[in-house]
Amino acid sequence: MKHNRRNFIGKISLATAGIVGLSSFKNEPGQREVKNVFIHHVFFWLKNPESVADRDKLVEGLLKLSKAKTIKDFHIGKPAATNRDVIERGYAVSWLLYFKDEEAEASYQSDPLHLKFIEDCSHLWNKVIVYDSVDI
Amino acid sequence: MKHNRRNFIGKISLATAGIVGLSSFKNEPGQREVKNVFIHHVFFWLKNPESVADRDKLVEGLLKLSKAKTIKDFHIGKPAATNRDVIERGYAVSWLLYFKDEEAEASYQSDPLHLKFIEDCSHLWNKVIVYDSVDI
Repeated sequence: MKHNRRNFIGKISLATAGIVGLSSFKNEPGQREVKNVFIHHVFFWLKNPESVADRDKLVEGLLKLSKAKTIKDFHIGKPAATNRDVIERGYAVSWLLYFKDEEAEASYQSDPLHLKFIEDCSHLWNKVIVYDSVDI
Repeated sequence: MKHNRRNFIGKISLATAGIVGLSSFKNEPGQREVKNVFIHHVFFWLKNPESVADRDKLVEGLLKLSKAKTIKDFHIGKPAATNRDVIERGYAVSWLLYFKDEEAEASYQSDPLHLKFIEDCSHLWNKVIVYDSVDI
């Protein structure tokens, strides 16, 4: 009976997972192709690259900015330890955003939270590169 | 009773969603911070940037490569229509991968599927930039 109950719970979980969608970042077997998204990936180079305080201020600003309502998922990153010729690792902060579509990203650009972020934090960086990508 | 049943189903769904995680790319209200990932974002510049056939070959190669077993999620993209000074849009293909951690990404680098991809497709590109990012 215990075994059957486990099976039942397993089936419920799978069925529900089918409805709500599975997380991208769990250990499911196999891979998942992400589709129908607008990917906005920004890399910031700091004016003071050695300043942990400045990096912390930038991250704090990004966390406030992450509340902008058209953002779906976001990731705040730093360069990994990997180091090959083709790897760019001079930036201080990676800011990766998912939007539903181009319209949602355009709305984010003029969101008051975004304007406030630029006002509060733009003195911290001296270079920004943005990669906007859509499904091929 | 119907109302209660709906509530019950709603609770089950939420509880299960909590276990399996919500999809990143659905229209849930609010945002989600992605954590505990290794992000590997590669941009390819083609030798023949105007060749749709070459781009198609590269995408075909990436789709085969996407079966590498340590890849979690992947997205194959092209530059969006957005066009501002800070936006880099000279690349032909964006290849965004999520791994569990640095070890999983290292394993991918030496995966036979990866070596085969380089063998089959490296003649197509003349420049690659890689950004590897981890949680800050």
